[in-house]
Amino acid sequence: MSTPTTDLHDLSSLVGEPAGAAEIGSRAAEHLWMHFTRMGTYEHAPVPTIERGDGAYIWDSNGKRYLDALSGLFVVQAGYGREELVQAATTQMRKLPFFPIWSYATPPAVELAERLAAAAPGDLNRVFFTSGGAEAVETAWKLAKQYFRLTGKPGKYKVITRTVAYHGTTQGALALTAVPGFKQAFEPLVPGAVHVPNTNFYRAPEHLADDEKAFGRWAAGRIEEAILMEGPDSVAAVFVEPVQNAGGSIPPPPGYFETLREICDRHDVLLVSDEVICAYGRLGTLFGADKYGYLPDIITSAKGLTSGYSPLGAAIVSDRIFEPFRTGTTVFPHGYTFGGHPVSCAVGLANLDLFERDDLLGNVSRNENVLRATLDGLRDIPIVGDVRGDGYFFSIELVKDQGTRESFSKAENERVLKGMVAKGLYEHGLYCRADDRGDPVVQFAPPLICGPAEFDEMAGILRTVLTDAWNRL
Amino acid sequence: MSTPTTDLHDLSSLVGEPAGAAEIGSRAAEHLWMHFTRMGTYEHAPVPTIERGDGAYIWDSNGKRYLDALSGLFVVQAGYGREELVQAATTQMRKLPFFPIWSYATPPAVELAERLAAAAPGDLNRVFFTSGGAEAVETAWKLAKQYFRLTGKPGKYKVITRTVAYHGTTQGALALTAVPGFKQAFEPLVPGAVHVPNTNFYRAPEHLADDEKAFGRWAAGRIEEAILMEGPDSVAAVFVEPVQNAGGSIPPPPGYFETLREICDRHDVLLVSDEVICAYGRLGTLFGADKYGYLPDIITSAKGLTSGYSPLGAAIVSDRIFEPFRTGTTVFPHGYTFGGHPVSCAVGLANLDLFERDDLLGNVSRNENVLRATLDGLRDIPIVGDVRGDGYFFSIELVKDQGTRESFSKAENERVLKGMVAKGLYEHGLYCRADDRGDPVVQFAPPLICGPAEFDEMAGILRTVLTDAWNRL
Repeated sequence: MSTPTTDLHDLSSLVGEPAGAAEIGSRAAEHLWMHFTRMGTYEHAPVPTIERGDGAYIWDSNGKRYLDALSGLFVVQAGYGREELVQAATTQMRKLPFFPIWSYATPPAVELAERLAAAAPGDLNRVFFTSGGAEAVETAWKLAKQYFRLTGKPGKYKVITRTVAYHGTTQGALALTAVPGFKQAFEPLVPGAVHVPNTNFYRAPEHLADDEKAFGRWAAGRIEEAILMEGPDSVAAVFVEPVQNAGGSIPPPPGYFETLREICDRHDVLLVSDEVICAYGRLGTLFGADKYGYLPDIITSAKGLTSGYSPLGAAIVSDRIFEPFRTGTTVFPHGYTFGGHPVSCAVGLANLDLFERDDLLGNVSRNENVLRATLDGLRDIPIVGDVRGDGYFFSIELVKDQGTRESFSKAENERVLKGMVAKGLYEHGLYCRADDRGDPVVQFAPPLICGPAEFDEMAGILRTVLTDAWNRL
Repeated sequence: MSTPTTDLHDLSSLVGEPAGAAEIGSRAAEHLWMHFTRMGTYEHAPVPTIERGDGAYIWDSNGKRYLDALSGLFVVQAGYGREELVQAATTQMRKLPFFPIWSYATPPAVELAERLAAAAPGDLNRVFFTSGGAEAVETAWKLAKQYFRLTGKPGKYKVITRTVAYHGTTQGALALTAVPGFKQAFEPLVPGAVHVPNTNFYRAPEHLADDEKAFGRWAAGRIEEAILMEGPDSVAAVFVEPVQNAGGSIPPPPGYFETLREICDRHDVLLVSDEVICAYGRLGTLFGADKYGYLPDIITSAKGLTSGYSPLGAAIVSDRIFEPFRTGTTVFPHGYTFGGHPVSCAVGLANLDLFERDDLLGNVSRNENVLRATLDGLRDIPIVGDVRGDGYFFSIELVKDQGTRESFSKAENERVLKGMVAKGLYEHGLYCRADDRGDPVVQFAPPLICGPAEFDEMAGILRTVLTDAWNRL
């Protein structure tokens, strides 16, 4: 695994863009500090600036169009230009543009909590709203700690997460994030995070490379091993994504979550399903846990809940975890001013209406195998090592050698992934993500309104760019 | 200082509200987990549910009106029902409802960054957007850590903050928060937070009780003492609010910030002005640092930046701190999906337009002494111990004895502050905050559109409720 030293979305190679780049892009780097960005890239070059969107397409400040194959950042499930969401926001903003849910309620927060509780699996009936994903992850970890202190197991505070997994950048969420290069400048972080291997079958140990079920048992076993090594009395939770994003859309092996649930039950460890990316239709189900049939104790979510039209996150919690807080004077002393913002909750309700009216889950379920087959069709290009994922959430892992699966060095990543692939895709009008948090991958998460026509457009551009990158290696 | 065991906004005593409470309030506690809330209070009682707002007033789900003397939660600077802000949000949402500023820019993020850089004091010219205050605080601490690692002082990571100060609840921000009761269920947090006394002159040590300047020198000196005790090579920053909120609107003594700036310079420690509450007009200046004439290295802000109509925060950073990131390949590996949301930035721009058009800063400057005098007029009520604050940001500290300044016990706080004062104010139509994170206070932060008429309404209700509480002690 290479340690990333640069940003996630690097477009260094776009330096020297057409001189006609709109003024706004040239002004961008003067005062704005972009996230996860190598700012030096833009010392003398315009910043790619996105100005408008419609359906699955976005336009930059030069008027150039791109297919948004990443839904912004795994966010814009219903696509751009959804007047129903605009209307919901406008109506709520006129009525009550803000109020905190600190001992108070607002009607949209109450209604969205009801809706999520009804839709979430099992007894996950209690909703703690936040403004985004990292805050939801912080909420879940803090809740796990306090829950065990309230139920006679005060030593349980550690959390197990998986290699290369990204859980956010606030300093609790960052401790759980298992990407060393994102952490080293900020240590010490919150103590208690322990990392284990993820479920990337393409990179399975040799003796497990032919048996996905055995690999899954091994990977789940590594979690139990970590619990035992740390001491079950010190471990509060395991945080896992249904399909792990960083590292490249890594799905669970068959039986993995069933085994993991048993392990968690055996050691009284909470299973937190971090669905900041996978919830709200990304996998063709409302929640990622539904896709693989497991029941977590807490689901963390954000992004797609509002299709991104207004910031919102939610930790959805089981009756069992809420129980010690339900009666008496106990408080979960935790909160965010903008958590459960009334406008965001109103947009969330309208977004779930759109999901139903337009059958977005059905669209994903009907077409996910078309997307898989379309991307699998690129396997003849020698640089394509693996195609993996589920739902509308796939990655292509790039390799130097399909046979040996040899990956690229850090310098090659710089030249190939960023220099050729990222640059080429963007120039050809495809917005997606070339990512080297783990082995180099190109990530796709198109809006849930997409279908075969958009997949063909993606594949066409990918074939051109990946073939070209291979030929110039 | 009492350790809070309950929520900040406790309305336990409202149990048994009129049976006619709207249905929504009765449903609220079934699935919604309110922030900092003793949920047991609502096991069999409706939750106060706020449904609409206009100007400085809000209405609950029973149609009852309240003067919002807290601006939601120090947020709604321009008041409710501002059609200009609604229009700005609607227009942007139609054009581009979401896009991440991860290596990309959007026009509203660029323009708001320019606007904030131009308005911020000194060389604070670089803007890192977040979705809220805690994320801005996390950003500032992480940035301080990385800055010193990049400039040859890798051991500097600790932060000094002041007793009872609240800096947020994500686990980095929470480490800085100096309210033990908010932290103990979640330890261990991020290591390196060190606490010193705040500047509550009303509770000054006896030998300093007559000399505010000497008290200020002593309080600033305690920060230098902490830096020296920890070792200057281990301390990265001091985080202070211009006027500290928790503990009750605690202003700086004369000369305090001048001395603090000297101390920070002497030990190469960053001065972070946490203005999540004090920025954007709360003190009659755009930034809190302007009010007291000091130049911080980083300003953290949120809340009032959009008057709360859409979630947004910002860390505004000096050229010096940005310098090691400006050129070359160095990255600040940090980001939030919803940070710098285009709709939020568009609302922020429109909000600053309103500030100018309606001269909201001027309104506060012209009327802050009227507010002070109005509240000072309540000092004849024996329960009123202190009235303090600045701008449109004041607190009344409640005492058992004006002469001895004796405070209430925890049980008395429960009965007096929550049972009588909080309940009475709410029943009489005044929304504000009875807070016992430190000594018991009632906090006020009215929208910046208010003036003498609203102050008189506040004072009238306060006189009734505080007199009644005193008589029933």
